[in-house]
Amino acid sequence: MKIGRETTPKTAISTSDAHTIVVRGKNLCQDLIGQTSFTDYFLFLLTGKPADATRRCVVDATLVAIAEHGFVPSVQASRMTYAAAPDALQGAVAAGILGCGSVILGASETAGKLFDGIARQVDDGVPLDEVVVRVVGELHASRQSIPGYGHPLHKERDPRVEALFAVAREAGADMRYVEIAEAVEAAIFEVIGKPLKLNVSAAIPAVLLGVDFPIKALRGVPILARAAGLIAHLLEESERPCGFALSYQATQQLEYTGVVPAGFKS
Amino acid sequence: MKIGRETTPKTAISTSDAHTIVVRGKNLCQDLIGQTSFTDYFLFLLTGKPADATRRCVVDATLVAIAEHGFVPSVQASRMTYAAAPDALQGAVAAGILGCGSVILGASETAGKLFDGIARQVDDGVPLDEVVVRVVGELHASRQSIPGYGHPLHKERDPRVEALFAVAREAGADMRYVEIAEAVEAAIFEVIGKPLKLNVSAAIPAVLLGVDFPIKALRGVPILARAAGLIAHLLEESERPCGFALSYQATQQLEYTGVVPAGFKS
Amino acid sequence: MKIGRETTPKTAISTSDAHTIVVRGKNLCQDLIGQTSFTDYFLFLLTGKPADATRRCVVDATLVAIAEHGFVPSVQASRMTYAAAPDALQGAVAAGILGCGSVILGASETAGKLFDGIARQVDDGVPLDEVVVRVVGELHASRQSIPGYGHPLHKERDPRVEALFAVAREAGADMRYVEIAEAVEAAIFEVIGKPLKLNVSAAIPAVLLGVDFPIKALRGVPILARAAGLIAHLLEESERPCGFALSYQATQQLEYTGVVPAGFKS
Amino acid sequence: MKIGRETTPKTAISTSDAHTIVVRGKNLCQDLIGQTSFTDYFLFLLTGKPADATRRCVVDATLVAIAEHGFVPSVQASRMTYAAAPDALQGAVAAGILGCGSVILGASETAGKLFDGIARQVDDGVPLDEVVVRVVGELHASRQSIPGYGHPLHKERDPRVEALFAVAREAGADMRYVEIAEAVEAAIFEVIGKPLKLNVSAAIPAVLLGVDFPIKALRGVPILARAAGLIAHLLEESERPCGFALSYQATQQLEYTGVVPAGFKS
Repeated sequence: MKIGRETTPKTAISTSDAHTIVVRGKNLCQDLIGQTSFTDYFLFLLTGKPADATRRCVVDATLVAIAEHGFVPSVQASRMTYAAAPDALQGAVAAGILGCGSVILGASETAGKLFDGIARQVDDGVPLDEVVVRVVGELHASRQSIPGYGHPLHKERDPRVEALFAVAREAGADMRYVEIAEAVEAAIFEVIGKPLKLNVSAAIPAVLLGVDFPIKALRGVPILARAAGLIAHLLEESERPCGFALSYQATQQLEYTGVVPAGFKS
Repeated sequence: MKIGRETTPKTAISTSDAHTIVVRGKNLCQDLIGQTSFTDYFLFLLTGKPADATRRCVVDATLVAIAEHGFVPSVQASRMTYAAAPDALQGAVAAGILGCGSVILGASETAGKLFDGIARQVDDGVPLDEVVVRVVGELHASRQSIPGYGHPLHKERDPRVEALFAVAREAGADMRYVEIAEAVEAAIFEVIGKPLKLNVSAAIPAVLLGVDFPIKALRGVPILARAAGLIAHLLEESERPCGFALSYQATQQLEYTGVVPAGFKS
Repeated sequence: MKIGRETTPKTAISTSDAHTIVVRGKNLCQDLIGQTSFTDYFLFLLTGKPADATRRCVVDATLVAIAEHGFVPSVQASRMTYAAAPDALQGAVAAGILGCGSVILGASETAGKLFDGIARQVDDGVPLDEVVVRVVGELHASRQSIPGYGHPLHKERDPRVEALFAVAREAGADMRYVEIAEAVEAAIFEVIGKPLKLNVSAAIPAVLLGVDFPIKALRGVPILARAAGLIAHLLEESERPCGFALSYQATQQLEYTGVVPAGFKS
Repeated sequence: MKIGRETTPKTAISTSDAHTIVVRGKNLCQDLIGQTSFTDYFLFLLTGKPADATRRCVVDATLVAIAEHGFVPSVQASRMTYAAAPDALQGAVAAGILGCGSVILGASETAGKLFDGIARQVDDGVPLDEVVVRVVGELHASRQSIPGYGHPLHKERDPRVEALFAVAREAGADMRYVEIAEAVEAAIFEVIGKPLKLNVSAAIPAVLLGVDFPIKALRGVPILARAAGLIAHLLEESERPCGFALSYQATQQLEYTGVVPAGFKS
C-alpha cells in the first residue's frame, strides 16, 4: 500500500557490497573498527561528522549521567519481564526502553525544545529574563509541568546537574543553553513560587545543545544510556533474580477497591 | 503474588540518597561523570571493575562493528514503526531491538556458548581438532545451523571478522576463542563440505570472551550497538522519511495465494 | 523512589485467594469462564458492567473491521521481527503493536477526542454545522491533518465505514457521533476543498462513542484487534516465512545518497 | 540484503483493492463485519475455516480464563511503563505482552508441545501410563520444570483448570489431551513425589488441542487475552494511577549489597 508521496527509500547512512561496508562515507572495517570509540561512532552515525574532544566529553558525560539510577520504574519493568521471559533478553531491554517516555526520561527532549524555543526568541531580540518569565507563565497557566525541573528524590538540585555543567564548562562547550536552563529555574521560583530545581533531564539538553547535538535525537541519549544500564541489570537478574520479588513487594499494600462475590474473604 | 522463593529484592548495582548516587561503589557525580567514557562505564556497570585498555579496545571495536549495516530487517521494522508512531521514539527503538533474536543478532550469544563449551572440553584434555569436528558433526546431524557462520552478503569472510581479530591481537587480548572460532570454521568445511565462513556474530564472542566479557551479557553487545544505529536511522527518518516507502516496495511483488470472493479482481 | 503523591496501589479490577479469582466482583471460574464471550469479557474488564446486545454488536464489528488489512507496515515489522527472533512470539507481536501510533491505528483515539469535543460544543448550544467548520478550519490553519479522514488505498470512502455505520444503526446504537463524523467529512470538503473521506479510524470512534465505550480506551480497540491479526500472520510466518523476503524487496530500489570511499562501486 | 532462499513474499491471509478487502476468501465488509464475533474472527484468521460452536466455546473460555489475574508482573510492568510514557498506550501494552515468556504465560505453548509429543507416542502404541512416567522422569532428570504444573498461589489445583475442563466436556470437545494432562499430573506425584497440580497454562493447551487449535499459535492465546486485560488496567491507570506507587512499594525492602563510597550512609 502506498502511504504518503515518497515510494523510493533513500538513506545517507550506509551501503555495502560483498567486500566493503560503507558508513557515512567511511570504510567500516578499515577506517572505523579499532579507530573510534563507541561514543564517537554514535555521534558520527547521527551527524556524519567526526566527533571533536568537546562533543565527545559532553556526550560521554550525559550518557554516563543517565545510564543508571537504581530500581527506577523502567528497570523494574525490565527485570520483571526478564524473570517471566528469560529466553528473550532483547524483550526485557525493549520493555525497559518503552519507559523512556514523556514523563520520565523523555523529558530531555521536551526540555530541549523548550530551551531551543527560548533561544530563538532571544535571537529575535527579546531579553532572556522576559522570555523565561513569559514561557514559564504560559506553561503554568495551561497547567503543564515544566519539563526537567523538580525531582522526587533530589529536592535540592539533582547532583548530576552541576557535574554535567562542570564537564561542559571545562570541555569548552557553548554554555548558552545552560544559562537559559538556569534562567528558567529562577523564573519558576519567581512565577510559581516553588523551588523546583533543575534535574538531569534539563541538564542533558542544556549541555548537548551547546555542542550542536541534533535536537530531534535528544531522547536518543537517555534511551541509549539506559540500554547499557538495563543490560547490566539483566545480567544481575540472570545471576541473582529479583524480578518476582519486586512484583511481590509491590503488592504487599495493594488495596482492592472493587466489590467481591458473596462469601469471598480477602 | 509470591513467585519463587525470594521475596526481598537485592542489588549490587546502585543505591542513592538525596545528595549522592552510588554506582558500583563509586560516587556517580564525583567519580564517574566526566571521568569515564560510555564504553568504560558500560563495562563497569556490568562487572563492577574498571576497564583496562585491552578490554576497552575490544569492546569498542565490537560495538562499532555491529552498530550499523544498512537497511537490515530490524532497521526497517524500526523505521516503519516510527513512521506510524512518530511521537514515541522509544517505541521505534524497542521494535528494532526486538529483532535482535536467535537468528540474527542474538547469534553472538549462541556462538559464545558454543566456543565456551569447546574451551571446557579442551580444558578437560580433548584436542581442539577433535572437539570441533565432533561438535560440528552433532549440530549438523541434528539439523541445527552453526551460529555465527555464513552470511547472506559476505560469502567470503565477513570483512568485520578480520578487523575485529586484528584489534584483539594488537590490544593484547587472549586469542584463545579466536583460535577456537577458526577451528570451527575449518571443521565446518571438513564435516559439512560447505565454505561457511566466520561472520561478525561469531567474531564478536570470539574476541569478547578473550577479555573476560560476561558470557550471559554477550547478546547485550549487539543490542546496545544497534540502539545507537537505530537512533541514527530514526533521526534520518524524522528528517527524510522512508518507512512507508519501504513498506510499499516490500509488497510490490507480493503474491496472494488464497481464494477471492466471486467478482474480485486483484 | 517515591514519584508522585500516591504510595499505596489500589485497583478495582481483580483480587484473589488460593481458591477464588475475583474479577470486577464476579467469581471468574463460576460466573465468567464458559458464560461469557471474549468480547463481552473485554467490555466487562474495561467498565465493570455486563455488555448488552447493542454494545457487543458494535464492539465486535469494530474489532473485526480493524484486525486485518494485509501487509500494512506494522504487519511487516512484526513478520520481520519474527523471522529474526522466532523463539519469542511475544516480541514479534509487541513490535507490531508498537506501530499502533498517532499516524496509523492510533488515529481512532485522536478522532474520538475530536468528535467528543465537537459534541460538547453542540451541547453548549452551538449548531453542529458551525462547530465543524470552525474546528476543521482551525486544524487546517495550524497545518494539522484531520485524524480519520483520507486513505491511501480507499480514495472513495473506506468500505469499512458504511459497514460499521450499518451495524451501529441496526444494533440500535446512538448515532450522534456518526452524524458528527459525517458533518466533519462535509466540512473538510467545504473548508479545504479536498474530498478526504471518512476512513475506518474515524468510523470506529464514531460508533463506539455511541455505545458509551470509554474514550480513553479507544486506542485499545485497534491494539487488541491487531494483536489477533498479528498472531495469524505469525502463524503463517512460522509455516511459510516471508519476513526476510519482505525486507529484501523493500530495498530493491533503495538509493544511497551519501558519499562512498575511494574505489567503492555500489 | 537477501537472507534465505525466498525473495517473493506470499500470503494467504488478505488482499484488497480500492473497493474490497478480502480476508481468507471472504469480503470483509459484506461477509464478516457485523456477521461474526471477534473470537470467531480470530479463529477464522488463524485457520481460514469458520468456527463451529465447540471451538468457539473452548476458545472463548481459554481467552476469558487467562486475560486477567490481578497485579501479576506483566501488569505491573505495563502500568509502570504507562506512568512513565502515558502518550504511548501501545508501548505500555507492548511492555506487558513482552512478559508472556517461557516462564509465565508462554508455558501454554511448552505444555502443548509436551502433550502433543505424548499423544504421538501413544499413537505409536506405547501405553499412556508408561509414556508420562518416562517423559516426566526425563524432564526431572535433566532438572527441567514440568511446564504448566504448580502455581505460586493456587497450591491445590488452579480453579481455572476444572472450569476449562468442564467447558470442553460440555461443548463436546475431544478430551484426549485433558486425559494426557491429568496423567502427567499423576506421574509428577509418582515420579517426583511433589503434588504439583495442573495450572491454567497446562489446562489451556489441553482443551485447545482438543478442538484442533494450531499448536504453533498456542502462545497467541495468552498474548491476545492479556492484551485485553492490559488495556483495562491501562484505562484504570489513566484514571487512578498506581504505576509509580507500585515501583515505590517494590523497593521498600530493597537491600543494596554492594559497597558504598566513604562517608555515604544509606
